[in-house]
Amino acid sequence: MDQTQGRQSICFQRAPHIIGTSSVVGKKEGEGPLGSAFSVVSQDDLFGEDCWEKAESEMQKEALTTAIEDAGIPKDQIRYLYGGDLLGQLIATSFGLESFGIPWFGLYGACSTCGEALALAAMTVAGGYADYTAAVTSSHFASAEKQFRFPLAYGNQRPLSATWTVTGSGAFVLGKTGGHVRVTGITVGKVTDFGVQDAMNMGACMAPASCDTIARHFRDFGRGPLDYDKIITGDLGYVGQEILLNLLKKEGYDISQKHMDCGIEIYDRETQDTHAGGSGCGCSATVLSALILPNLRKGIWKQVLFVPTGALMSPVSFNEGQSVPGIAHGIILEHC
Amino acid sequence: MDQTQGRQSICFQRAPHIIGTSSVVGKKEGEGPLGSAFSVVSQDDLFGEDCWEKAESEMQKEALTTAIEDAGIPKDQIRYLYGGDLLGQLIATSFGLESFGIPWFGLYGACSTCGEALALAAMTVAGGYADYTAAVTSSHFASAEKQFRFPLAYGNQRPLSATWTVTGSGAFVLGKTGGHVRVTGITVGKVTDFGVQDAMNMGACMAPASCDTIARHFRDFGRGPLDYDKIITGDLGYVGQEILLNLLKKEGYDISQKHMDCGIEIYDRETQDTHAGGSGCGCSATVLSALILPNLRKGIWKQVLFVPTGALMSPVSFNEGQSVPGIAHGIILEHC
Repeated sequence: MDQTQGRQSICFQRAPHIIGTSSVVGKKEGEGPLGSAFSVVSQDDLFGEDCWEKAESEMQKEALTTAIEDAGIPKDQIRYLYGGDLLGQLIATSFGLESFGIPWFGLYGACSTCGEALALAAMTVAGGYADYTAAVTSSHFASAEKQFRFPLAYGNQRPLSATWTVTGSGAFVLGKTGGHVRVTGITVGKVTDFGVQDAMNMGACMAPASCDTIARHFRDFGRGPLDYDKIITGDLGYVGQEILLNLLKKEGYDISQKHMDCGIEIYDRETQDTHAGGSGCGCSATVLSALILPNLRKGIWKQVLFVPTGALMSPVSFNEGQSVPGIAHGIILEHC
Repeated sequence: MDQTQGRQSICFQRAPHIIGTSSVVGKKEGEGPLGSAFSVVSQDDLFGEDCWEKAESEMQKEALTTAIEDAGIPKDQIRYLYGGDLLGQLIATSFGLESFGIPWFGLYGACSTCGEALALAAMTVAGGYADYTAAVTSSHFASAEKQFRFPLAYGNQRPLSATWTVTGSGAFVLGKTGGHVRVTGITVGKVTDFGVQDAMNMGACMAPASCDTIARHFRDFGRGPLDYDKIITGDLGYVGQEILLNLLKKEGYDISQKHMDCGIEIYDRETQDTHAGGSGCGCSATVLSALILPNLRKGIWKQVLFVPTGALMSPVSFNEGQSVPGIAHGIILEHC
């Protein structure tokens, strides 16, 4: 049963369905334009824990628990978990998902991890390897600043090209039937490096990868911008969005009328001081859960190309003068 | 086409084949008992680079290049790469595999990553998502010490329970037919936490997870130790091996006559001063490539259960007083 499509894509012969979802976010995200749409908004960014990493684990736990409730199936029906976060050695995820007792595939694709997790969770159901799977990702502003940048107490200034890491976790339960959104295909991205070295301009680092994946997606499926109601990237922000639109024009595709970016949607540019927008594995995951899936469920959008984007670097690679390559994965979501 | 088996396992209806492999190791590994069996032994642990992380990337590049040559297929026939390493944000892998231009799923399962990568690469071929996939993992003694422990120049003493991170990378090309070893099934592991907090005793941290996965594997497939020529864990070392054998006896399984551990096989205990044995994603991967697959290929072993093991922690989680949970994935390898 060949399910390949073009060079990098998969077209599912039996498209898996997203049957449950949840988004758990922090205070700042709750004050943003999508505030009322999230499943849980915590006023305590420590989520009752004593450090940021444990807080992030707690968010994941709450997101997966409520997504499973939303799916209305017993927890032990979920055969495999796909999940990850931004922290070294994925500690938010390994400690966050431990108590579920469900076999786990740990994933790292920087902020694209939500796409990677959904792709593999969908492949697993569509391949007959499970009746139900789940995908969970998270990021936390404070644990990410500690991991990648400066201690919060240092109060460093941020350039206008910098994004603000979203405190949030999104979880998704996939099954063979049910719900009103299905995953009909995926385009897996490759590491794309334009040599950008500015870790305070992630949008510029990731835009080439998202262009590569979107253009490849169109070619693999013989489609174009008109085939989608929306084409929604993960966290390019304002800077990366402009670069993406320009790069895709050079490839012959004008997606300007269809493009949205989760990093742009999640914060209010005028009042929230988040500069270029939101970012993090939790950004695309919570916006998918709170904004994109509801629009698809209601049939307001019929078909969306969801493209989480990631910037591949660590404090070590940055300090050693390496560039910041990007990666992006495309997920086709359809109303059904 | 239901391919599930028991609670956590998959039995492939069309088992994918391992059609190419390669192992690239450093000087110390070349001086060990498997020295002559590795594909490439470098006398320069920097692999011509100027830092340990780039050296590790270079090892991965060489391992994948030579594995693809061994498979005898053009590079662009490989549809998806599955790979990871021990470093924060997987920098060894993202920079190491970038130049191949092949879509990539980044994975983190600590030292179990080789099992995670083989499982997903096999699922992808068996699910009709690709004709060819590849799995690549690595570790490097010096980059791991820098990441997890002390600067090398500090010259810290190591307790006898500590393992020595293998400098090595193993790569595997999977396809629908060819070669003489196939992957007939997998058992995906879950995070297992016995509360051990000693990061200098990884064997004790990982033994409960390997016990859980092996016992679950036997139950899922209705098998026992007698069904395998060898049951080979990743990097429990001498300390972890003893714990595993005892834990499995309590579960009703005596695997003492069948058990081997890659961490025990790779170094000479008497002369190489590696204490409890070898460890790292590169340990199980290079021993699989250099020792296990050749024995299966020749038919000396007919059926092997390969169980890479990982300890889930980071310097941050360790410093915050968290335990070190483990995870292990089981891969059935058969001569054909």
